[in-house]
Amino acid sequence: MPYEFKATRRVEFSETDMEGIMHFSNFFRFMETAESGFFRSLGYSIVLGRNGLAVGLPRVHAECQYHAPLRFEDEVLIHLLVEKKTRRSLTYQFRFYRLNEAEPPLVARGRLTAVCVNRTEDGTMKAVELPAVLADKIAVAPAELLTNDQARVSKKAD
Amino acid sequence: MPYEFKATRRVEFSETDMEGIMHFSNFFRFMETAESGFFRSLGYSIVLGRNGLAVGLPRVHAECQYHAPLRFEDEVLIHLLVEKKTRRSLTYQFRFYRLNEAEPPLVARGRLTAVCVNRTEDGTMKAVELPAVLADKIAVAPAELLTNDQARVSKKAD
Amino acid sequence: MPYEFKATRRVEFSETDMEGIMHFSNFFRFMETAESGFFRSLGYSIVLGRNGLAVGLPRVHAECQYHAPLRFEDEVLIHLLVEKKTRRSLTYQFRFYRLNEAEPPLVARGRLTAVCVNRTEDGTMKAVELPAVLADKIAVAPAELLTNDQARVSKKAD
Amino acid sequence: MPYEFKATRRVEFSETDMEGIMHFSNFFRFMETAESGFFRSLGYSIVLGRNGLAVGLPRVHAECQYHAPLRFEDEVLIHLLVEKKTRRSLTYQFRFYRLNEAEPPLVARGRLTAVCVNRTEDGTMKAVELPAVLADKIAVAPAELLTNDQARVSKKAD
Repeated sequence: MPYEFKATRRVEFSETDMEGIMHFSNFFRFMETAESGFFRSLGYSIVLGRNGLAVGLPRVHAECQYHAPLRFEDEVLIHLLVEKKTRRSLTYQFRFYRLNEAEPPLVARGRLTAVCVNRTEDGTMKAVELPAVLADKIAVAPAELLTNDQARVSKKAD
Repeated sequence: MPYEFKATRRVEFSETDMEGIMHFSNFFRFMETAESGFFRSLGYSIVLGRNGLAVGLPRVHAECQYHAPLRFEDEVLIHLLVEKKTRRSLTYQFRFYRLNEAEPPLVARGRLTAVCVNRTEDGTMKAVELPAVLADKIAVAPAELLTNDQARVSKKAD
Repeated sequence: MPYEFKATRRVEFSETDMEGIMHFSNFFRFMETAESGFFRSLGYSIVLGRNGLAVGLPRVHAECQYHAPLRFEDEVLIHLLVEKKTRRSLTYQFRFYRLNEAEPPLVARGRLTAVCVNRTEDGTMKAVELPAVLADKIAVAPAELLTNDQARVSKKAD
Repeated sequence: MPYEFKATRRVEFSETDMEGIMHFSNFFRFMETAESGFFRSLGYSIVLGRNGLAVGLPRVHAECQYHAPLRFEDEVLIHLLVEKKTRRSLTYQFRFYRLNEAEPPLVARGRLTAVCVNRTEDGTMKAVELPAVLADKIAVAPAELLTNDQARVSKKAD
């Protein structure tokens, strides 16, 4: 059962800022690119309404650690791993690698948590369970994958 | 009857690109800022569904001439003028002035045309008439205002 | 000698707006995606400073006609054609096709004009000639290609 | 000595996504809006090169907790508090309040850490001390302010 997905993107000119690097907010958009690809790989759209599932997946938490900058035209591998799955939420880990080099360095790590919500009549959102047809297709990544990398990364950050 | 609106914005860091200037695509977002403010000044939201008007205003044409760059932290005046009003569409002119200087220079000119559409059941859009409650509140700017400036600008471009 | 380039993009969730379609300003970013790819295909980066060419290519004009909306996850073909080449400027035409369908419909047409500039000491820009090493690699598209499509599109717009 | 700053923004149409709410990545851009304003209030630009300080402030960590969505035209108060100041880094807390209502609700909380870097000849970045002229102007917010709110927020999240 799938617990990961790899997407690639090239940094666009419009994603750079006047410091000459990709603006830090765009890493969060890249995370979403991988998440959308992950859902497509399962036969779903991240916009669940498109699949007859009357729920959405707004984010409740987002974070990113930046180890090195990305620059215009860099090719980036975005590696999504499912870190946690509860009845009502999904948490992903993300690792960003710059592919230009022979041994692609880890340039950033991220995490997103999305909760499953139903829209009520007045436009507010109410947390509900993930649709079984979707939840049953998603596994949590092996602990080893999730921890090993953390070790490696924390070593790097020393 | 109102035919113009002035909005101000300060260029954000995230709106710059690696050339050190505001990315050219963001001028179009600034045009929309002025259009939204114009509609609010009339008592409406540009998202007409919010006003019980079951129509939208997608763009069919957008253009911009750039005379000088905008940079981070520049304060910008965006001057909207209604250039044309048909039964089903609105065309605006925009002028961008950099406010930092004593005599704010014209740094760009733009134009947007939006058509009024109804959404059909299958999600497609169909052109319809502007709701009278809205159209009756909007005037076309005096020809003098629209032409004078063109003269001035074309002189500048010689 | 090359006079065209084709790039593909998939519409990202972050590129949509609350009307459920790609925000109109993002078409201009897609144009740039194709332009960057075109330059890479010539062995150059659109950021000419990277190639030892001490010039830049800021835009002086940008426009887009929208015939149909793009939606989340649509695959888009962006077709760049060199429309005009002067000593100091380049003008491109762009056509956007939605690839989801058997006969990809033309959803938008665009145009960008960029001028070659040198940065002076005080940060201002001064128009200069395109570096010969670059200009010599770029041809203007055959008139037939540029005109044929206009005919087809204007018919569509009737 | 200043340890906080309040900025306001109105959610732009181009900042919404097809779920009808502000895209989550834009909260990070709003954080930067407040940070830029904070620096201006101190007489500096966040782009330190503009102040003759040959250093930059790239982000090494960014995070956001979302309690409620922001929608088009919402007015937002962004409250920056300096949480931590080391010789080489600054960490800010951010709280987002939706101003439309009589008792503006807290809709999100964020945190950014930026390190001071010097650019070396080869374009890489090297951590250096914050310039004293800048560091001496910035205080850390009283612990009470930083903790009180955490209590309030965690209660909300129960």
